[in-house]
Amino acid sequence: MERKVLVEVSARHVHLSPKDLATLFGEGYELTVKKPLSQPGQYAANERVTVVGPRKEIANISILGPVRKETQVELSLTDARSIGVLAPVKESGDIKGSAPCKIVGPKGEVLIPEGVIIAKRHIHLTPATALEFGLKDKQVVQVKLDNGDRSLIFGDVVIRVRADFANAMHIDTDEGNAAGLNGDVFGTILS
Amino acid sequence: MERKVLVEVSARHVHLSPKDLATLFGEGYELTVKKPLSQPGQYAANERVTVVGPRKEIANISILGPVRKETQVELSLTDARSIGVLAPVKESGDIKGSAPCKIVGPKGEVLIPEGVIIAKRHIHLTPATALEFGLKDKQVVQVKLDNGDRSLIFGDVVIRVRADFANAMHIDTDEGNAAGLNGDVFGTILS
Repeated sequence: MERKVLVEVSARHVHLSPKDLATLFGEGYELTVKKPLSQPGQYAANERVTVVGPRKEIANISILGPVRKETQVELSLTDARSIGVLAPVKESGDIKGSAPCKIVGPKGEVLIPEGVIIAKRHIHLTPATALEFGLKDKQVVQVKLDNGDRSLIFGDVVIRVRADFANAMHIDTDEGNAAGLNGDVFGTILS
Repeated sequence: MERKVLVEVSARHVHLSPKDLATLFGEGYELTVKKPLSQPGQYAANERVTVVGPRKEIANISILGPVRKETQVELSLTDARSIGVLAPVKESGDIKGSAPCKIVGPKGEVLIPEGVIIAKRHIHLTPATALEFGLKDKQVVQVKLDNGDRSLIFGDVVIRVRADFANAMHIDTDEGNAAGLNGDVFGTILS
């Protein structure tokens, strides 16, 4: 059986804690939905922020909702180097020891002592698909992308299984560009 | 036999024709050497230019010398998208049908009708190493990079053999970042 999965390229984005949302946008402010994402309940918000590093800043960064327990900034390595931040490759949610930055919104700014990460490539699977594919949560696989003149095989791809997931592989813009992606594509899980 | 090759990440850069060098820096101007590159006779110059696309510009781009027959701008896909240019993945020197841009220097500017490319990943080999590795000019191989938490295998890597080359694989910053590279690393040629 060929194990195919939709590959989505995640652009740089920010998740905000309720407290940081209030500081950046004002007390009681709520994010508004611009576009639902593939993962159920997740959305790109209309609101945007500026992320500031020691060397440079990047304006107009998308916020993904809903709010989360902790603020997290997901950049590509290209972005992180450009703003002068030494961010580690980590799984979403695992921000301990990650990089600091300043976030600026229309009503205020926050200095986060950690939270800037380069997202580790991963695949969201429903329990049913994980069973069908013979894969388990936290398993590490290889995924082949073949999209013309920049074919490649990603190693170190983490499987994540949860009932409220939709099947999708997430990579960042550096990884999507290294594979020459332009729009939706399917990858093949190899091992 | 393990076929190992040094992997170098090429940052965005420009090669200039004698005519465009004269327009950008003044008649009779000659590039000055900042740093020799791994390929014999090639160097990063002290001089820099700004590359302008329809959406944005990137300042302070390195010029690689010596001058070449035709002007060529090598960007990452991240760069090309950011300035709004639809550049194709092509081998260096093969600029036919590639993207246009404006280049601005201290003494003038040029509008090149084509010349912006995303460099196709490739390996420079001396004839002796090609023989030792059992590889031929123009052959396409896979190369495995294993640098911690972003291991991957690049497909579509073109072998280039010439007596005046030094052994080195060249990838761009998107590709280097997708592999989590930070400094020099060796890749393994797989097939």
